[in-house]
Amino acid sequence: MPSISQKGIKMPQSPIRKLVPFAEDAKKRGTKVFHLNIGQPDIKTPQVALDAVKNNNIETLSYARSEGSEEYRTKLADYYVKNKINVTADNIIATTGGSEALLFTIGSITDPGDEIIIPEPFYANYNGFSTASGVTVVPVISKIEDNFALPKIEEFEKLITKNTKAILICNPGNPTGYLYSPEEILKLKEIVLKHDLFLIADEVYREFTYDGLQHTSVMSVDGLEENAIVIDSVSKRYSMCGARIGCIVSKNDAFIKTAIKFAQARLSPPTYALIASEAALETPQSYFDEVIEEYVERRNTLITELNKIEGVKVANPKGAFYCVAELPVKDSDDFAQWLLEKFNYNNETVMVAPASGFYSTEGEGKNQIRMAYVLNKEDLIKSVEILGKALTEYNK
Amino acid sequence: MPSISQKGIKMPQSPIRKLVPFAEDAKKRGTKVFHLNIGQPDIKTPQVALDAVKNNNIETLSYARSEGSEEYRTKLADYYVKNKINVTADNIIATTGGSEALLFTIGSITDPGDEIIIPEPFYANYNGFSTASGVTVVPVISKIEDNFALPKIEEFEKLITKNTKAILICNPGNPTGYLYSPEEILKLKEIVLKHDLFLIADEVYREFTYDGLQHTSVMSVDGLEENAIVIDSVSKRYSMCGARIGCIVSKNDAFIKTAIKFAQARLSPPTYALIASEAALETPQSYFDEVIEEYVERRNTLITELNKIEGVKVANPKGAFYCVAELPVKDSDDFAQWLLEKFNYNNETVMVAPASGFYSTEGEGKNQIRMAYVLNKEDLIKSVEILGKALTEYNK
Repeated sequence: MPSISQKGIKMPQSPIRKLVPFAEDAKKRGTKVFHLNIGQPDIKTPQVALDAVKNNNIETLSYARSEGSEEYRTKLADYYVKNKINVTADNIIATTGGSEALLFTIGSITDPGDEIIIPEPFYANYNGFSTASGVTVVPVISKIEDNFALPKIEEFEKLITKNTKAILICNPGNPTGYLYSPEEILKLKEIVLKHDLFLIADEVYREFTYDGLQHTSVMSVDGLEENAIVIDSVSKRYSMCGARIGCIVSKNDAFIKTAIKFAQARLSPPTYALIASEAALETPQSYFDEVIEEYVERRNTLITELNKIEGVKVANPKGAFYCVAELPVKDSDDFAQWLLEKFNYNNETVMVAPASGFYSTEGEGKNQIRMAYVLNKEDLIKSVEILGKALTEYNK
Repeated sequence: MPSISQKGIKMPQSPIRKLVPFAEDAKKRGTKVFHLNIGQPDIKTPQVALDAVKNNNIETLSYARSEGSEEYRTKLADYYVKNKINVTADNIIATTGGSEALLFTIGSITDPGDEIIIPEPFYANYNGFSTASGVTVVPVISKIEDNFALPKIEEFEKLITKNTKAILICNPGNPTGYLYSPEEILKLKEIVLKHDLFLIADEVYREFTYDGLQHTSVMSVDGLEENAIVIDSVSKRYSMCGARIGCIVSKNDAFIKTAIKFAQARLSPPTYALIASEAALETPQSYFDEVIEEYVERRNTLITELNKIEGVKVANPKGAFYCVAELPVKDSDDFAQWLLEKFNYNNETVMVAPASGFYSTEGEGKNQIRMAYVLNKEDLIKSVEILGKALTEYNK
């Protein structure tokens, strides 16, 4: 029998995926499961995007241009300019989701054996894309005690080797909800310029910032033109995760030209989704205002409720729609499975993401979970109540 | 300035892409360009698929399941069973185009430095995906004199090393239009079993076989269960290249489990396109009968017309919608560019794909071109007439 690749063996399995069969079994037993485990918002997609697809006049569903049409990229550039990111269509490549944007980026700037430094905890699939590319993730630990702020410059510099090619941040962060300050972005600028590294920022949650705080894009910082690469996506912005349209944004021409070669090899992003994404750019500001208001209320609700449970420590997220909570348990993987397999409160339970999957340092985050506040307030209150009851019973 | 990866530098640029600016300039000068250069059919997408998307009731465009829904994969399995490929939903992973199917397959079975043997000429993007994965393509030459039949077993065995992981065929072939006989598939079976290799077959043109010949899938051969992997796509079958839905089919469980990890990392295939693809499975047989009849007429027209030009040698394709022709020129890259840059006949010209991009052996195919017969008969006749006039003038 022919053998699987070493790379294939090493590819991490999603920590949530392992729990899916237990969630399915719970549902079969008639237990209602509240899903705080995944960043799939319940928010409606803007009507203008849905309508554009419903009203399409396609007769032959043809390939789109590999990097996205001139028209779409020009409109996208307008969106960025409005967000103080001064780019043109030529600085943008449309991709199949933020996922592909990251894959093309890693392929364009790293060879097998190279290293990327990522503040930890980080979005679990960064590990997957890195493994697929033969690249090593070098974590730099950020702490729940510091609300997951950027580690000190010295911590980064300790980790930089001749194989280091980039620093990758997620801003606002998944799973932490942390929003980097302008000062932190300048710190990163200093490091990447000094060591000639790329600074990749996954900014798919750009719009989701709270408490009057502003998002600082790495693309808006002078002097980072050759170093900054933004990963973006329509998934969260317009609650259209299923479209699978993202993009790469960079002013580094050599990088863009290289990434386009990866884009050409896979021919094109999905045509229907491009139609939806182009139309979504017409989404009125009122849509975002309502969505942000909703998320702020949800966040406040979730944090308030979590803080009522003894032994729970929770970072206060300033963006995105996740938070990381420390629980009075030793092994949140075991606890998350137990919640689905053994527990129910009035025939209801919750599904959460054990945080160990967001760390690459062995043993880190074992008592933490990530919760996505993608449910309405009532369900969030109920979910935390269930979590509290569960913790009491689990720790008996 | 941070540096691009070696991999990125090596990524091949599409040979057609280089010609695009010349085609654009020609159009600006008012010259009509007949496009024989790309496999984008002018055939209409089945109405049932288009309607399914127009009539969708989505309010929140959510992620699909990473490997495609149970329902879609079950229906797909029915399609395969009807095509004498005895598989179940568990043997299938839905992907974002055949491109991604190939990328996940290469990732799952090869590590950097490994080798894949491919009969040459081959689909140019096999080079791109291999380069992206750090894998070496080892070409085994098939010849226009033999109509691009499979080279002898000995030719393969000469090339097999400890790093060889798979043989990859495209059946029916792009760019050759060659359809492998049952005997040739059995020859490949013998080699892959003897040397413990995977046999990957890109069968996206399965329906497009002519002259009463039947397609033989590697999945329908007994004894190949652990070795055979099929790459498939809705792009050509339903003339919906822009959907970007493909799939991986294999009975090798370890392989499927590994490929699913790659699928999970990129979250999901595009949701709208999945709706179109599931509906397309209801396409009536009459659609295919008409399409095949059309392609047979086009092929006959193209081959007949090409054979009228002195010095042109053309293989007779039995499948797909491409043919490779040898021209009385030394450098078809130069000729193809000249056609767009310097030539017109009554203000019209043709765009063809120089065949050198379909060879990885340096210098092979320099006097060949690939033509896709994706235009109607009248346009094909006109295109070949233009080509004939052009050859006379070019060779003056």
